[in-house]
Amino acid sequence: MDLSEFELIGRITGKAGGADRFVTGIGDDAAVIRTRGRIVTSVDTAVEGVHFQPGRPARENARKAIASAISDLAAMGVGEGEKEILVALGAPADTSGEYLEELADGVVEAAASFGAELAGGDVVSSPVLFLSVTVIAHVGEDVPLVGRGGAKPGDVVAVTGPVGGAAGGLALLNGTEVPDLSDLSRQLLVDCQVNPEPRLGAAPVLARCGATSMIDVSDGLSADLGHVAESSGVTIRLEAAEIPVVPGVPEVAAALGVPSLSFALTGGEDYVLALTIPQDRFEEADSALIEATGFELLAVGAVESSEGGRGKVTIETADGIEPPAPEGFDHFSGPDIGSR
Amino acid sequence: MDLSEFELIGRITGKAGGADRFVTGIGDDAAVIRTRGRIVTSVDTAVEGVHFQPGRPARENARKAIASAISDLAAMGVGEGEKEILVALGAPADTSGEYLEELADGVVEAAASFGAELAGGDVVSSPVLFLSVTVIAHVGEDVPLVGRGGAKPGDVVAVTGPVGGAAGGLALLNGTEVPDLSDLSRQLLVDCQVNPEPRLGAAPVLARCGATSMIDVSDGLSADLGHVAESSGVTIRLEAAEIPVVPGVPEVAAALGVPSLSFALTGGEDYVLALTIPQDRFEEADSALIEATGFELLAVGAVESSEGGRGKVTIETADGIEPPAPEGFDHFSGPDIGSR
Repeated sequence: MDLSEFELIGRITGKAGGADRFVTGIGDDAAVIRTRGRIVTSVDTAVEGVHFQPGRPARENARKAIASAISDLAAMGVGEGEKEILVALGAPADTSGEYLEELADGVVEAAASFGAELAGGDVVSSPVLFLSVTVIAHVGEDVPLVGRGGAKPGDVVAVTGPVGGAAGGLALLNGTEVPDLSDLSRQLLVDCQVNPEPRLGAAPVLARCGATSMIDVSDGLSADLGHVAESSGVTIRLEAAEIPVVPGVPEVAAALGVPSLSFALTGGEDYVLALTIPQDRFEEADSALIEATGFELLAVGAVESSEGGRGKVTIETADGIEPPAPEGFDHFSGPDIGSR
Repeated sequence: MDLSEFELIGRITGKAGGADRFVTGIGDDAAVIRTRGRIVTSVDTAVEGVHFQPGRPARENARKAIASAISDLAAMGVGEGEKEILVALGAPADTSGEYLEELADGVVEAAASFGAELAGGDVVSSPVLFLSVTVIAHVGEDVPLVGRGGAKPGDVVAVTGPVGGAAGGLALLNGTEVPDLSDLSRQLLVDCQVNPEPRLGAAPVLARCGATSMIDVSDGLSADLGHVAESSGVTIRLEAAEIPVVPGVPEVAAALGVPSLSFALTGGEDYVLALTIPQDRFEEADSALIEATGFELLAVGAVESSEGGRGKVTIETADGIEPPAPEGFDHFSGPDIGSR
């Protein structure tokens, strides 16, 4: 490793914003930050070879790790307001100074692009490259937030955009040959994989419009809605025909000989929001979402009561209703073995 | 890895306290927590083979990683009040379920022992075991905190206890033979290494009694006071004869053929607090510290003005004044290449 402690932290420190709420900024033993009554906080980790492919650009890795962590805030209804990140970076001792500089710059740029200030950093020697990102958002007492446990029978299940794109992009990066895919579709899918966007614009709109539960699609629609079903004690019934997939996914799926629904359900890393909302508030939420983000709210199913309150997800296809978890897709299942 | 996502997080969740300030606890996308006006936050990471030895007990590793992170709060003057930790755990896929359970239990126990609630967890697959711990403390606007940048010429430099013990313990764990060392001394030194204690009892006392700067001794007295000297733009002059070392360190140092002062200055991981304080407040602080913790405040040097405001540390020995950094001690220098 070429950069000493001081140089790398200094590089980050020199570019960190230092908003007014910082009593003490990055560079001391700890940061001291004034709050607005409540904080929303979560941690998310990305490991090279598990969450991002070896050899990808440093800036891309930094941005993806931070986007994934910020997305957990969006899942709670947090928007573009005051927030911080703390980044723990593990890097092999032979990592080049150039790569580390790119990582540091990528961290600073990604934080800024998501409206976050850097509040802490730790750089350690590690046999494998990893980034562990803690996010902290400041929200007043009156700001509505949405957990996983409020879905009610009769609610509509909806998503803020198409899914399966990140898994499609990963298949392309892994060398899947799809001759009939346009360059534009190819670029879009790879972008879904390497350049995900947390839905900070959509999240507070949906929280204000009465979403009863919300989650970001990180592990795949069926696993993530499974968490909602479990926390809420309901059955979530998805209608296969309504689930929107990113353009190009059907072609990649066909090349691999699997249904594109599998990409949608188990692909993950899409970071769209999946939510439940009372039927009589759906249109209001749809209009507000279009006004705020330009995108429609897409209904994909319904919440039903569950026998004994045990949560589950079912899929209604042309062949009937069945549980999800198509076989043979372990290579698309989220690399996390536990993520909150 | 034997434990699924749900089981491991569930194991932690089931034991997490869920204090009144939690609006939403661990187990959702993010925790929502009411604050007291300010938060103090920092992140610290421990990697197996770098920060703890392979094969050490899981509970010990969990506790040490958390103690080290909490110590950064103590360095700011934070005491035993409300605080949270978020833990990112990376573990190889073949880690036994038993080991993971011990780690999870160790995290919960260590958090409780330091008065911290678990606010978030992430468990990921990684080729190497690591724990990245983010700490968040809640402090009101009126609570005095201490950074690194306030040391003034004329201040006394002091420590809250003897140093060098953790490095002595590491030398013993690494197989250094010290035949004339008592079992008690041996145990004490190893304990300094594997079972460090953040000084949460001492920290707020010293902040209240006028400490002008404070830091926890994690990288070694000379490196850590070097950060203070640099941030404050002063010279810190240490008197070698006054620096207290943990009993048994001289014997270990002699066995290795190096001065025990080297252990004290560059050993690190002692987690005592090093601070500067105006001379006319030293006695008050000493009395208050004895009352709160039973331990004396130990003067080890003085703050002097620095040419051009460039911070540095010097050591006054029987042979004169010299810069620190004794040669041949790279194996004791802190494993962190950057830590805040």
